[in-house]
Amino acid sequence: MTGYTSNFIDRSYKPSKNDIITTVEVSPAKNVDFKTALQNVAGESSVGTWTKVKTTTKRIEKMAAKVFWYDKKKGLAKIAYPNILFEADNIPQIMSSIAGNIFGMKTLKKLILLDIDFPKNVVKSHGGPLFGIRGVRKILKVKNRPLVGSIIKPKIGLRTKQHAKVAYDAWTGGLDIIKDDENLSDQKFNPFKDRVIETLAMRDKAEQETGEKKVYMANITANIDEMIERAEFIKKNGGRYFMVDVVTVGFSALEELQQENKKLKLVAHAHRAMHAATTRSKDFGISMLSLAKIYRILGADQLHVGTVVGKMEGGKKEVTSIERALRENSHGMKKTFPVASGGLYPGAVQKMVKIMGKDIIIQAGGGVHGHPNGTFEGAKALRQAVEATMKGIPLKKYAKKHSELAKAIKKWGTA
Amino acid sequence: MTGYTSNFIDRSYKPSKNDIITTVEVSPAKNVDFKTALQNVAGESSVGTWTKVKTTTKRIEKMAAKVFWYDKKKGLAKIAYPNILFEADNIPQIMSSIAGNIFGMKTLKKLILLDIDFPKNVVKSHGGPLFGIRGVRKILKVKNRPLVGSIIKPKIGLRTKQHAKVAYDAWTGGLDIIKDDENLSDQKFNPFKDRVIETLAMRDKAEQETGEKKVYMANITANIDEMIERAEFIKKNGGRYFMVDVVTVGFSALEELQQENKKLKLVAHAHRAMHAATTRSKDFGISMLSLAKIYRILGADQLHVGTVVGKMEGGKKEVTSIERALRENSHGMKKTFPVASGGLYPGAVQKMVKIMGKDIIIQAGGGVHGHPNGTFEGAKALRQAVEATMKGIPLKKYAKKHSELAKAIKKWGTA
Repeated sequence: MTGYTSNFIDRSYKPSKNDIITTVEVSPAKNVDFKTALQNVAGESSVGTWTKVKTTTKRIEKMAAKVFWYDKKKGLAKIAYPNILFEADNIPQIMSSIAGNIFGMKTLKKLILLDIDFPKNVVKSHGGPLFGIRGVRKILKVKNRPLVGSIIKPKIGLRTKQHAKVAYDAWTGGLDIIKDDENLSDQKFNPFKDRVIETLAMRDKAEQETGEKKVYMANITANIDEMIERAEFIKKNGGRYFMVDVVTVGFSALEELQQENKKLKLVAHAHRAMHAATTRSKDFGISMLSLAKIYRILGADQLHVGTVVGKMEGGKKEVTSIERALRENSHGMKKTFPVASGGLYPGAVQKMVKIMGKDIIIQAGGGVHGHPNGTFEGAKALRQAVEATMKGIPLKKYAKKHSELAKAIKKWGTA
Repeated sequence: MTGYTSNFIDRSYKPSKNDIITTVEVSPAKNVDFKTALQNVAGESSVGTWTKVKTTTKRIEKMAAKVFWYDKKKGLAKIAYPNILFEADNIPQIMSSIAGNIFGMKTLKKLILLDIDFPKNVVKSHGGPLFGIRGVRKILKVKNRPLVGSIIKPKIGLRTKQHAKVAYDAWTGGLDIIKDDENLSDQKFNPFKDRVIETLAMRDKAEQETGEKKVYMANITANIDEMIERAEFIKKNGGRYFMVDVVTVGFSALEELQQENKKLKLVAHAHRAMHAATTRSKDFGISMLSLAKIYRILGADQLHVGTVVGKMEGGKKEVTSIERALRENSHGMKKTFPVASGGLYPGAVQKMVKIMGKDIIIQAGGGVHGHPNGTFEGAKALRQAVEATMKGIPLKKYAKKHSELAKAIKKWGTA
């Protein structure tokens, strides 16, 4: 094997069902041709290096990754990686291979990891979601409509009692779910343990008053020991959910959290803060679709996927493809609930359900707490928008007899 | 506070020494002006959201991040975040704030997190490197020249005995350091524990024969429990180092590993596989400089920083600025040893030392094992290149009396 040779390209290769398959978008750097760029990518991510080495063997050459399909015009290629290259239960190692050094290679002008297909042993050794869409619906006793929630706002800064009170207002207004924001964890003005106790007390009160199940998702994001301690604390105090910033905590901690959670059995809500530093780039990066598949394997029962209509990027095509991936059959894994969150408001609900279907979780922060009459009416308006949508009644028509929704539409319009 | 208001911009604000300061490069999306984009970034990453909310208070408004400097023409800005927003010992939470949702905002066409300055409490609650450049030099008893090492090649696939033998050849040829490649961890053909035992046995043999200290850096990349077990195994078997793929394991596990390692006291070698999926993009991403500062705080004694001349991207300006950051005085932290690795060869040494100085670790994989006469002579050639450089003798001149170096130069030339 002389460096990144043509051995790494073999269009006659038929991938085994045990291979990891990636789809990549590649542009070679100036004066590099497309096939050379592909050889570099498949070589560097498996058994190759830039020059011929004396230490290789025939046996090792057979372990090479194979580019088994490419389309030069579109700049696309598919690469198969033999299972023997990986530890099935080690996502960091897998990503260090298939998505490691290759992004840094001088021979490339562009490299996007568009998609990954994981074989059975990678999926099974992790296990995927514990609850999935059906399990979450069962807990909430909501069968046929989108779940609807809010993020406590301001993002950060409320004291514990204020936080719990805002949650109570939102729940009694009609929301199913309350979550912390991604940057709230265990700050002095609102300590984690106090917050869990106070907010779950308000949840119990709201459940009694409304006769509905209510969910509080406390953000456990921290170093792994602290995260597990916080998850255990939630469990001990009667919580059913944790929320974690999956990108900033990283793969290694998520694997551990998933294993620990097999004992705790909490629903895992995955926030994706920082994803766009990797997923949004047009030149070098990893698609949200790829990350979504990994987070599903790593146990995300619920995952933020984009809103199409809100304040965050993510178009219809991307978001719906991620949704599909979260629900597709993959070695018996449960389905991950897609979460739409970021710049949403009651008037956006109908369009979102049209695009994304009813198996979604709709979260609005500003779009609830920014209601002209505050959180309680904001929550009512959001729930009314969901009701109208499920009844097939246009929002503006429904608003005629629902003043909270009318006020929300007056302020923010419809999407 | 009405959404992302102008409250988030205050050029008269004087940052406190306890603030976290970021430097960002920003381009607004179409029809968005520069100041609005800045308000969005500072707001979304602290206490703001897209619409005015009823739940905010005067006290919380004071917790807002402040854009205290900007240059519209250059598209640059500096933002100060009050310390109260953060848990000092929680890098995931800090990154979810200052580098979280903001990359996804529709109002932006470009956002690069160029630099971060961390205050004392963030540094102190982690601690930085245990050994640093001086500690590593003390272990190796090498005072005045670059350290020189090799990555075992092929990247992956050698059986344990072969792996240990290649390491032995490289050490006895004159190298200080042998490391696993980033995608080698605990695969069946070369199990981690066997590899550590066999390779450390060869290290002992090489130390005896050469009279020099030799280092083996075994890759412990995995889920956090497994990583700690592997680090403990290294310690128990007389190893002094571990290597970890810092990007793919993630911040939460690194914080835990750092704490555990305060007991084990191993030298931490940080490989950065996958960094370029975030650091190389021209539109949305986080600079390697920012990540390097974080990995130093998280305990990296040695960190891959780029080579300028090798197979990986990373120009002179970027690499030297990262080097400076790893060595600058920051609340008493030890200095991180910059590692140049990726596509290097003996003929590149002189230029690299000219650019990067002698306080670097030079690693060559293919550039050692690809030597026409194999690993042993390849290692000799690389060490000879370092000797020539330290004596101030041009490589080609030195090669006249050093046939191994001559052959390497004949094959790969000089940089």
